[in-house]
Amino acid sequence: MNFTVAIGPSSFAEENAAPRHLLENAGITIKDNPFGRRLTEEEIIEHLRDCDGLIAGLEPLNRTVLASAAPRLKAIARVGIGVANVDFDAAAEFNIKVASTPEGPIEAVAEMTVAALLAMNRRLLSTNEALHQGKWKKEIGAGLCGTRVLLIGYGRIGRRTGELLSAFGAQLLVCDPCVTEESLKRGERHVSLDEGLAEAEAISLHAAGETCILGDAEFSKMKPGVVLLNSARGKLVDEQALIRALEAGIVAQTWFDALWQEPYAGPLIGYSQALLTPHIATYTRQCRLDMESAAVRNLLRDLGC
Amino acid sequence: MNFTVAIGPSSFAEENAAPRHLLENAGITIKDNPFGRRLTEEEIIEHLRDCDGLIAGLEPLNRTVLASAAPRLKAIARVGIGVANVDFDAAAEFNIKVASTPEGPIEAVAEMTVAALLAMNRRLLSTNEALHQGKWKKEIGAGLCGTRVLLIGYGRIGRRTGELLSAFGAQLLVCDPCVTEESLKRGERHVSLDEGLAEAEAISLHAAGETCILGDAEFSKMKPGVVLLNSARGKLVDEQALIRALEAGIVAQTWFDALWQEPYAGPLIGYSQALLTPHIATYTRQCRLDMESAAVRNLLRDLGC
Repeated sequence: MNFTVAIGPSSFAEENAAPRHLLENAGITIKDNPFGRRLTEEEIIEHLRDCDGLIAGLEPLNRTVLASAAPRLKAIARVGIGVANVDFDAAAEFNIKVASTPEGPIEAVAEMTVAALLAMNRRLLSTNEALHQGKWKKEIGAGLCGTRVLLIGYGRIGRRTGELLSAFGAQLLVCDPCVTEESLKRGERHVSLDEGLAEAEAISLHAAGETCILGDAEFSKMKPGVVLLNSARGKLVDEQALIRALEAGIVAQTWFDALWQEPYAGPLIGYSQALLTPHIATYTRQCRLDMESAAVRNLLRDLGC
Repeated sequence: MNFTVAIGPSSFAEENAAPRHLLENAGITIKDNPFGRRLTEEEIIEHLRDCDGLIAGLEPLNRTVLASAAPRLKAIARVGIGVANVDFDAAAEFNIKVASTPEGPIEAVAEMTVAALLAMNRRLLSTNEALHQGKWKKEIGAGLCGTRVLLIGYGRIGRRTGELLSAFGAQLLVCDPCVTEESLKRGERHVSLDEGLAEAEAISLHAAGETCILGDAEFSKMKPGVVLLNSARGKLVDEQALIRALEAGIVAQTWFDALWQEPYAGPLIGYSQALLTPHIATYTRQCRLDMESAAVRNLLRDLGC
């Protein structure tokens, strides 16, 4: 059977053609995103005409779009984890299968978290900047060996982050209501949030949802000089409370990759103690390739290829 | 017996008093460095008067100094690896035992090397700088998983670096004439320098000595876009050849912690692709503590305490 598949993400197979070849080798006709950017509702309706499947990005896949694409559209395979752009009720009603790639970002996000902690603890940015200005200024850092790191949220990304930190000899404190003592195999210590905040020299957020976890009350319980890492969601932290904690020296350094608004231009950009990256924790060539390949495999399976 | 021990390094026990307590608990009288900097020949001669032992930094411990301190001086314990400042013939002649702490820097240097590679590969510095200037500019990076890293020199620091890189899934190529295929246990591949240069996506120097290993001929054999890491010695790389390789895009990014002259103010400071740190790979609180504690233990042993 000759299927036609529309491509949503403008960057699909851009860095590596392998996922495209997977589709071609299965005899699929490929319809590329003609705009080089995220499609609007009207555009995706037009783009999905006479298509059996969609490799999806974050384009709106609401009831109107799905109603228009059915009954020919049989499967949607999202490149990535989040599927908030898909109307699941409508998809079920029109018999459209929906898949995502929850495994894809784990390695890249965990690696980026460790990268950020190492860069801050070993003073890479400040000493590099000074040296480029001709100033030879040694700073003493904190190696990860023996450093107590609190992981708030211990799902797939939190666990992989913990595994990498363990390789450096860090001591892991885990705060996650869904985790049982028995499932901790690496010498991690299960702690309450208060215990963890009081002991940790570094804190990394890997929790789901958008409910604020760290506000003034929590910052006041932290060890002064702590390092805070956030690759999850900006809203897990009260931005103004963080600014106060930075000013007070409670938080010595902080890394945010997920911010409150994106693009971000808020008050944190005025603090040199803040390492800020533009939501690129999943931006590795390997991670893009893994997620795209997994999405193609999901789509081929759901189309019955 | 009541021994007196002189302290050479001005920073001894500054971050953590434990090594000083080790000496005190053994009943040692401590004579601190009164200058707060590296001592000259005249100063160390005066400093060593009526001392049984020396916790040594890099002060000149030549024949004149040792002849003056003998016969009372019985032991020198260097905080660190290098002992090029000690005249070993004279020490043997005057019956002065000399020890160093070769294990001390391993963890800190290996960790710093991985920190530098991650920071460069994951674009931390360029995206952070842009964001602090209000520019939201995503850049795609290279995760370590699957990345081929050539380790030139596979002694203690090279091996620990390899171990940490393996935790991230890097593929290790090892070039070291002293290493046999059988001693490679982590799936490393033993390669010639030419093979390694042709295949590596990152190259890290962990060789001993000061003989130049990477010059124009070697840069011309590298994969364009390679990342070069140097925590060992500046002189292992031809500085001008490196500048040419950066200009030509053969070397995409490079990290130097050990430089040709220190303090360094050479041409590399004009290149934003160069991550430059002021010889701080051993500058962690843990590493200083480990090396100082090991030096104290060496000294107590050699004094027969």
